[in-house]
Amino acid sequence: MNIPSKLIEEAVEEVSKLPGIGKKTALRLVLHLIKQDAKATYGLSDALKNLRENITHCTVCHNLSDDSVCSICSNTHRDHKTVCVVEDVRDVMAIENTMQYRGVYHVLGGVISPMNRIGPDQLTIESLIQRLTGSQVEEVILALSTTMEGDTTAFYLSKKIKTLEVKITAIARGIPLGGELEYADEVTLGRSIITRTLLEA
Amino acid sequence: MNIPSKLIEEAVEEVSKLPGIGKKTALRLVLHLIKQDAKATYGLSDALKNLRENITHCTVCHNLSDDSVCSICSNTHRDHKTVCVVEDVRDVMAIENTMQYRGVYHVLGGVISPMNRIGPDQLTIESLIQRLTGSQVEEVILALSTTMEGDTTAFYLSKKIKTLEVKITAIARGIPLGGELEYADEVTLGRSIITRTLLEA
Repeated sequence: MNIPSKLIEEAVEEVSKLPGIGKKTALRLVLHLIKQDAKATYGLSDALKNLRENITHCTVCHNLSDDSVCSICSNTHRDHKTVCVVEDVRDVMAIENTMQYRGVYHVLGGVISPMNRIGPDQLTIESLIQRLTGSQVEEVILALSTTMEGDTTAFYLSKKIKTLEVKITAIARGIPLGGELEYADEVTLGRSIITRTLLEA
Repeated sequence: MNIPSKLIEEAVEEVSKLPGIGKKTALRLVLHLIKQDAKATYGLSDALKNLRENITHCTVCHNLSDDSVCSICSNTHRDHKTVCVVEDVRDVMAIENTMQYRGVYHVLGGVISPMNRIGPDQLTIESLIQRLTGSQVEEVILALSTTMEGDTTAFYLSKKIKTLEVKITAIARGIPLGGELEYADEVTLGRSIITRTLLEA
């Protein structure tokens, strides 16, 4: 692309580094910002800088947080006896959006994946064990992806936690609500039959 | 969406103000920046701020420019006797990308559009007339959109320029290269027959 301004070129260069944004989209966004009031650009620029300077990880659950203890861990109205283990902050948000969970979280920061050179030491597993040891936590819910890596991590965690006298559960797998049987994959459908639940009348 | 961090929320808010970027995409971009090295965020933030603080309009052609005279207007190797009139900076880039044009530009900043309350006074038309008056410019090429507004603007401009003894041309309209006749709209096809050109053998 033939951009006649160094300033625009640099901004486009930076914006197009974002995932899913190519040079053309970046140019469109940058030209939009130039058209807008300068305040809009300063607001965006400052919000990003401020975020990156001040965002930290909760020392308890390792979730992204504004303070050293996140808003969920410091909330006394939540059930601190139940810990839901998830992969990353997006999973926390997804579960929070359901409004069905009142416990706390533990963010692993990924799953065990030898292919990507991520072993147990790269995750916050040791911190989880320490957190559970001698604590009042009664149940650990594993809410990991059903990929090979997710299953491996769940298996590893359950082995580690088993010694601690904490109940270990995993989120239910099965046919999604509103899902039609004929379009469900065989593995999910097969498993949903094996792990069928008693219908309360 | 249930974002547990004020910092992330503010950044998402600002990013989602950009055109075509919703809350979900904004969150994905923001989480991406958090995962990256802090330098990436600072680079982006600074490039945007720097752009908005220093970008200006060329005093000659009104194109976006780093300096008071843009790189095209200050280039002595270009043909300053030919001025191509376009709507905005995107059109300049599009024409520059063709590498077929060696003249200079004049950026109107829009087209006459009574519906949007844009009259001749909101555009750089007066500046164009002054630029042409008593100058060495020999040809003005109108490269405006073929919308009603574009045509109105072209008509207004040609009336104004006619008194100045400058040749006025417009970019050719017709079937795009590689375009198939059966898929062309009737107006374009009809006009391409009326304005047919002599085939040089």
